[in-house]
Amino acid sequence: MEQNKLRELLESMSIEEKTDQLLQVSGIFYEEDGVITGPANTMGYTEEEIEQAGSVLGSVGAEKLKNIQREYMKKQPHRIPLIFMADIINGFKTVFPIPLAQGCSFEPEMSRRCAEIAAKESAASGLHLTFSPMVDLARDARWGRVMESTGEDPYLNRCFARAMVEGYQGVHELREKGRIASCVKHFAAYGAPMAGRDYNTVELSERTLRDDYLPSYKEAVDAGTAMVMTSFNTLDRIPSSGNKKLLRDILRGEMGFKGVVISDWASIEEMCNHGIAQNREEAARLAMEAGVDIDMMTGCYCKNLRKLIEEGKIEAALIDEAVFRILNLKNELGLFENPYKDADEKEEKEILLCKEHRNEARRAALETFVLLKNEGVLPLKNEEKVAFIGPYVSNCEIYGAWSMFGRPETTVSAEMGIKSRSGINAEFLTGCAMLNEFDGLEYMKGKGEETGNESEQLLEEAEEEAQKADKVVLFLGEHRMQSGEAASRADISLPECQMELFRKVRAVNQNVAVVLFTGRPLDIREISRYAASVLVVWMPGTEGGNAIADVLYGDVSPSGKLAMSFPYCVGQVPVFYGQFATGRPYKEGTDEKYVSRYLDIPNKPLYAFGYGLSYTEFQIGKVCLSASHMNREGVILASVQVKNIGGMKGKEVVQLYIQDVCASVVRPVRELKGIKKIELFPGEEKTVSFEIREEMLRFHNVDMNYLSEPGEFKIFIGNSSETENGAIFVLE
Amino acid sequence: MEQNKLRELLESMSIEEKTDQLLQVSGIFYEEDGVITGPANTMGYTEEEIEQAGSVLGSVGAEKLKNIQREYMKKQPHRIPLIFMADIINGFKTVFPIPLAQGCSFEPEMSRRCAEIAAKESAASGLHLTFSPMVDLARDARWGRVMESTGEDPYLNRCFARAMVEGYQGVHELREKGRIASCVKHFAAYGAPMAGRDYNTVELSERTLRDDYLPSYKEAVDAGTAMVMTSFNTLDRIPSSGNKKLLRDILRGEMGFKGVVISDWASIEEMCNHGIAQNREEAARLAMEAGVDIDMMTGCYCKNLRKLIEEGKIEAALIDEAVFRILNLKNELGLFENPYKDADEKEEKEILLCKEHRNEARRAALETFVLLKNEGVLPLKNEEKVAFIGPYVSNCEIYGAWSMFGRPETTVSAEMGIKSRSGINAEFLTGCAMLNEFDGLEYMKGKGEETGNESEQLLEEAEEEAQKADKVVLFLGEHRMQSGEAASRADISLPECQMELFRKVRAVNQNVAVVLFTGRPLDIREISRYAASVLVVWMPGTEGGNAIADVLYGDVSPSGKLAMSFPYCVGQVPVFYGQFATGRPYKEGTDEKYVSRYLDIPNKPLYAFGYGLSYTEFQIGKVCLSASHMNREGVILASVQVKNIGGMKGKEVVQLYIQDVCASVVRPVRELKGIKKIELFPGEEKTVSFEIREEMLRFHNVDMNYLSEPGEFKIFIGNSSETENGAIFVLE
Repeated sequence: MEQNKLRELLESMSIEEKTDQLLQVSGIFYEEDGVITGPANTMGYTEEEIEQAGSVLGSVGAEKLKNIQREYMKKQPHRIPLIFMADIINGFKTVFPIPLAQGCSFEPEMSRRCAEIAAKESAASGLHLTFSPMVDLARDARWGRVMESTGEDPYLNRCFARAMVEGYQGVHELREKGRIASCVKHFAAYGAPMAGRDYNTVELSERTLRDDYLPSYKEAVDAGTAMVMTSFNTLDRIPSSGNKKLLRDILRGEMGFKGVVISDWASIEEMCNHGIAQNREEAARLAMEAGVDIDMMTGCYCKNLRKLIEEGKIEAALIDEAVFRILNLKNELGLFENPYKDADEKEEKEILLCKEHRNEARRAALETFVLLKNEGVLPLKNEEKVAFIGPYVSNCEIYGAWSMFGRPETTVSAEMGIKSRSGINAEFLTGCAMLNEFDGLEYMKGKGEETGNESEQLLEEAEEEAQKADKVVLFLGEHRMQSGEAASRADISLPECQMELFRKVRAVNQNVAVVLFTGRPLDIREISRYAASVLVVWMPGTEGGNAIADVLYGDVSPSGKLAMSFPYCVGQVPVFYGQFATGRPYKEGTDEKYVSRYLDIPNKPLYAFGYGLSYTEFQIGKVCLSASHMNREGVILASVQVKNIGGMKGKEVVQLYIQDVCASVVRPVRELKGIKKIELFPGEEKTVSFEIREEMLRFHNVDMNYLSEPGEFKIFIGNSSETENGAIFVLE
Repeated sequence: MEQNKLRELLESMSIEEKTDQLLQVSGIFYEEDGVITGPANTMGYTEEEIEQAGSVLGSVGAEKLKNIQREYMKKQPHRIPLIFMADIINGFKTVFPIPLAQGCSFEPEMSRRCAEIAAKESAASGLHLTFSPMVDLARDARWGRVMESTGEDPYLNRCFARAMVEGYQGVHELREKGRIASCVKHFAAYGAPMAGRDYNTVELSERTLRDDYLPSYKEAVDAGTAMVMTSFNTLDRIPSSGNKKLLRDILRGEMGFKGVVISDWASIEEMCNHGIAQNREEAARLAMEAGVDIDMMTGCYCKNLRKLIEEGKIEAALIDEAVFRILNLKNELGLFENPYKDADEKEEKEILLCKEHRNEARRAALETFVLLKNEGVLPLKNEEKVAFIGPYVSNCEIYGAWSMFGRPETTVSAEMGIKSRSGINAEFLTGCAMLNEFDGLEYMKGKGEETGNESEQLLEEAEEEAQKADKVVLFLGEHRMQSGEAASRADISLPECQMELFRKVRAVNQNVAVVLFTGRPLDIREISRYAASVLVVWMPGTEGGNAIADVLYGDVSPSGKLAMSFPYCVGQVPVFYGQFATGRPYKEGTDEKYVSRYLDIPNKPLYAFGYGLSYTEFQIGKVCLSASHMNREGVILASVQVKNIGGMKGKEVVQLYIQDVCASVVRPVRELKGIKKIELFPGEEKTVSFEIREEMLRFHNVDMNYLSEPGEFKIFIGNSSETENGAIFVLE
């Protein structure tokens, strides 16, 4: 539809028809045939409101959504179609590794492919938009939602933000087959809740907000994301859904975002709890003034906007703008011409979980595993007798908390993956329960989950088999519901029953490798000290078990790098590589008193951002710069020679960090500015180069201007954030 | 001297004479007779610079300082006297409880008396100024310097800030006998280092800075503090000693501070480490432009200011301003007329540690102990056989890390205090070493300290005596050097050897009271659960042992209240009562999923701000308001009846909290707005009233204007921050 037609459509709509467009309700309100069901009434919506709501979230399935759309359109006076949205976070039916794991691939192109497949599958299932990517910077491992982020670094997050937006949407038209719209979230700075407690207050200076937290959202906007979701948190003591400065001045004004802004689930109404709105009417006014277009799952807009306009409390033009943006999105998706878009039962059957998608899921998982330690246990050899032990051995729920459409019955467990290999000598045992108790996870009680403590027999069997085996691989980890939304933990260690299993097994066999399933960096001091090898596999998704087998038996060398530092212990958080210079820097290992340090632990995390081992070994040569001085239009080429000096093919992530040595404000001790993942055969050598330009050196200076300042810069190129392989150049 | 004379003096000074006034050096550079010693040269100062330095820090003693002053004056061409400064934090020779303990008294008048005595003693010893009070808001128990603060609350900190400034300075003239100048520190927000690591980056929004962190400094300025010290940390990524906005705009401009600004130790030079100054010259320029008058212990000013002026890089007027402020302070102290001020060897002998001061120290300590739990063990009775066990039983180093002039030989240990009572039946045992290892405290090795592990015999003896006793009192705690400057801890629990002692003793005797010596809130979950009674005595100072005996045997009922919450565990920090409303509030004890909570621990601290028990019991009646509505000029009287319904005389701290129910920004769930400590005999009843005025309701609103907003307010009056005893009023 052309823009002027859309305008005409808008003008022909009644005020109720308009405000209904701003309402988003749950798909559970509709039966298969589009009839409104019970729960809708209990939430205070009228039948008309549900019938006329502009969008629906959380329902999938080509047949179902086509039915709902068909029935809806019959009653829609202007034949404006519904838009179907859902949380397609790390894949749809084919589940890819969780976003934090994807970050560890240091390969945004991989995430682009995952997003493309997720888009194809969910489009065939009738969806039009996903609430992804989540690009919140995450630096506190207590926060459960770190699993949904790509980690602690602004630059890495930017790379993934763009890759995912383009993966879902493509770079041409949203109406293209197999594309869905993306919604970047959570705007803004949801990733920094105080004390790591989900939904808690965020405390940031404007400089930190702009330098570190906003760039990933900005990148998603620049990449063309159709939608932006507000965050639950406050920023500067103002909830995002009522934050005019954030949404109108920064998002729409400075970033130039022209798409739709949606609230997070009930976050408009929640401003009453926050205490900045007296009631839902005031909440509606604040949100509309701030620029939130869609009200997700509350009646604030549909019950109050008309009244607010009639009473002159808000301008009708605000509503028109919001509605027009929604109509425009529907139009960009081609829904006026084809309200079902790609919904297709036949294609659904063909492509969901198809071999090609599964292979991509396996490939993706292989990029995300991070080898933290390896003293000879990995890779395993066929002829070795191996005891595979632990609560994650045969567990198929290895797809993370936000994989709403993942199913155990379509997921490959570690045991299944390993057993599919021929010629191995393996025993598989559970060893212990996943959890000691249902601390905070009471809703899982009686759902097939068991807690430990009375598993003496399991432990004994494990000990026995471990003793007989050449090597032991322990599959340990957090329960998948211990991370994710509303899953903050003050204690970020493994459940005690698993640690007991670890100690028992380690006591009888020193050749222990731990394969760690987790949604967050954990305190693994003890495991890191006593296990011979530690491989973090996060929540690897549908093909997790196959990928794990590939790596354990050495078909593929691990190549992931930590996208988030593993803290030494919870008392160290937030800890991240890009900290700021202090006036009293501590030199690790010395015992100077009056420096910035702890008495009892190092300043450094246990494993730092960018760190990850391989089965082979890479030698990275000295940094060569094409010039030692650069003017503002110039470019310096920074290069290193990388050589595989080990005995196996493998991938290495070459990382460029830059330090601004002296500036008008204190700068991070170093910042990631480039990544290149390369593959090398044994003995093979490649030159890896990064272009350095003035734009890469910008920050918000003392006067809050975004620019670079002349002076000396240090460059570091290596395979972790702790590399000391450096060179110096001067910006003139 | 009159102001115009001072001006004339300034004008008669050469540029070197001026910049020398801006230098502060250590007293160790001077021998008893005023001759300059070795270390000065090693730091790069010339003899002339030392000879002409405007002030000296860290030396005390009437005779010594008089000698130094005499020799100095001989060489001073304008006969401008030196000013002697030192860290008199919680008392001079008579050591009072650490500031965090003083905060727990909830009685600023007590701190005023402590400060008065500290001023008298140190003035007699030749001092002119103390680097106190420290009024940094402290909410992270990992930070070692919480011991030096009065805790987590802006209002409480304000009360103590004023009391201490007035205590040191008096309210008339600084030159009065027995008065010294005060220096409020550390400006600003030093108390919020990231991850609790001393000197680390501070990350705060401007609103939080203004609403929560600045008020205590402002109060000290309003109370007339002569000096302000800059902080080590950055704020908005700018180190305080180079932060023009902070020092010129806020401190001098908005707060109207007219006194002297001093750097913290070497903090001007440290801007080179921070990376905002290329070298010491640039550091000097930044600090001078920002408005730092005195350069503590670096050569930045004395080596560079002249050159900077000559090269036109800074205006000479800036130096003149700074020098004039220093001359003015010397004049206010009366030093031009009497350069020795109160230095007096005879008086020193008479008043230092005199009976009157000791009694005040004992009284002060009695106000600061916080009884966290009491299930029948306390108070002890003379006829009971009591085993007093633990590394703090006979320890005399119970005066905190900053008590530079405290001495074990003048301090009363718990054992000494208890033994001074007649008719008791007591055994005293060490039980275990203070520490397991010298983690981060290596400099103490071989200084009489021992670490545990091989103390099997001590443990056995303790067990034996515990078994024989009616009751056991365990004297446990942090080592005093585990808190204080540069003493951050990631693990805030007790040393494991002490926990082992606790467990062994508890296993053989259930009547265990723990007396806790500490400089910070600790994770005491286990002790809190298994000990029958827990009494926190902090670092109680010179008369600590006597005060402890007074309380243990029930002569005095404990009346302290926590000025800083005891976190449930380190994974919960920062935790404080005045948190902000979230959109998804958690109701403690329920198991709702999508609310702001942890999976594994409560949101609430183990013991909250304002909490503390007594041996007697107080009944606080319902809140009565004199009116339910208030206009902007009005006042509401909020009253409660408080009755001692127990069997013993005691003090209760009645606390007024207010919640701004709905505002243009999210407000704290409640804020302390009034405290009254009252004493009641058994059966006695008093009415406690608080005046509520509009000024008390102000905050920085959405437009950053400092004002109150009309609407509903909730009032809570009770004996802890968790009281639900409430009423509502409306501001019109």
